[in-house]
Amino acid sequence: MVGNQEVTPESGPGKGRRLEIEIISSGRELLIGKTVNTNAAWMASRLTWIGASVTRIVVVGDSVQEISGAIIETLARRPAALIITGGLGPTYDDMTVEALASALRVPNALNEEALRMVSEKYSAMGLPMAPQRIKMAYLPIGAEPIRNDVGTAPGVSAELMGTRIFCLPGVPREMKAMFESSVLPALSKRSGAVYGERTLLLERVPESTLASVIDEVRRLHPNVYFKSHPKGSEALPLIEMHLSAYAPDADSLSKALDSAEGELISAARQIGALVRRGCA
Amino acid sequence: MVGNQEVTPESGPGKGRRLEIEIISSGRELLIGKTVNTNAAWMASRLTWIGASVTRIVVVGDSVQEISGAIIETLARRPAALIITGGLGPTYDDMTVEALASALRVPNALNEEALRMVSEKYSAMGLPMAPQRIKMAYLPIGAEPIRNDVGTAPGVSAELMGTRIFCLPGVPREMKAMFESSVLPALSKRSGAVYGERTLLLERVPESTLASVIDEVRRLHPNVYFKSHPKGSEALPLIEMHLSAYAPDADSLSKALDSAEGELISAARQIGALVRRGCA
Repeated sequence: MVGNQEVTPESGPGKGRRLEIEIISSGRELLIGKTVNTNAAWMASRLTWIGASVTRIVVVGDSVQEISGAIIETLARRPAALIITGGLGPTYDDMTVEALASALRVPNALNEEALRMVSEKYSAMGLPMAPQRIKMAYLPIGAEPIRNDVGTAPGVSAELMGTRIFCLPGVPREMKAMFESSVLPALSKRSGAVYGERTLLLERVPESTLASVIDEVRRLHPNVYFKSHPKGSEALPLIEMHLSAYAPDADSLSKALDSAEGELISAARQIGALVRRGCA
Repeated sequence: MVGNQEVTPESGPGKGRRLEIEIISSGRELLIGKTVNTNAAWMASRLTWIGASVTRIVVVGDSVQEISGAIIETLARRPAALIITGGLGPTYDDMTVEALASALRVPNALNEEALRMVSEKYSAMGLPMAPQRIKMAYLPIGAEPIRNDVGTAPGVSAELMGTRIFCLPGVPREMKAMFESSVLPALSKRSGAVYGERTLLLERVPESTLASVIDEVRRLHPNVYFKSHPKGSEALPLIEMHLSAYAPDADSLSKALDSAEGELISAARQIGALVRRGCA
């Protein structure tokens, strides 16, 4: 099917059709290794399963310059969407809205809808609207607030150069609720693809022997991504083979994965591998 | 001490002296959310504790173009070091060495020392040097192999535009062993700083009330980073306050943190917070 060309699913013909999404995670806690970036992995998985393709994740510190720089670099790559997490709260180092305004080249202004959202929260708690609380209702002009049912700081949604930008809080349970209620519904209807995967466990053959077999089989299946994850060692091999694909519909997806998986199993058995379905 | 200027530890005078390090994690498994990027968090923590400052973490897929693009962008920011993990194995989508060569604008060539490392491994296992194994001994001209005592693929070390580049495998136990044996010794002697942190738990006061108190105290301590992590809600507040700092030596570090912590505790108690030492 591909002849001599070096075509992988990352560079292949399917790529142009996919909904490409980038993630920017802001927060010093991620750069000092205090916090593992589970937010990005969680979003990436949810986005993959709606048929979108996360092409880059960038972690930066809590600085207007760092965040706005990362936003501008991302926009130049023209993804369909950019999701930014962190930096939406009331404290001095919550810089995301200011960074977004700087990247969009518009000023921040008090957003009436955001102010209503924040006021409702605090009036329900019997707390007045202090300046640090009003700060959370300032948005770049033209941007819209995203309702936060779990916490207090609204998210932000804006569009520039064809990229839809969503800013969500870094607190995982707030981020997840807003992602499910606002981000996913907007993106899933634009995806136009389904994603699927298969996982196999291979024993007895080292990855360096399996490599040429994978290479032969994957050339016949340019729309399936074959990825080997060594879980043992070369001397005591245990390889997790992960096959994944995007397709326009569930039927062609199953067909592509069935066929690739079947051929890989046969080829691996021929060189002496013990093959099982499942993860390590 | 800082007057009216907006100085944070990220933008403040201490920054120029710090050893700035960036991380590139390559691997489709990270972009589909199959794997959480614990490698980057582990390295970031180890680097922070030797007094270095991780300024960016970028996750890209297994493509020469993506990885080399990320390398070139990183080099333009002139960090002291760049650590790249993933993509060093024998399979078709292990692209890091090719991407590095492309970014360095030099060809790959068989490296005698790397070949010896790889040959020793396979001859000990009684396996011949097949092409997929010899592939792991190809390095960009001018680069040096890094010994891999746990796995088989050597790491790569190179220098360009004043940035020391280390490529390590993505398999965590291989990455960690090589990081400890090769990366950390090289970087720790260049750091010239020590890092320290304090953690406090504050109850009874919402983050939005605490925000102005944090802002007042942190202005008096421009070399200490004050970061609030909400763990409860605004209605039932539980705030983890993380204070961190870099200093030229352990004495000035303790002094800076003691003073900042003491003042924050007093100020927080004055507005009714219950303060304890420790993490949530």
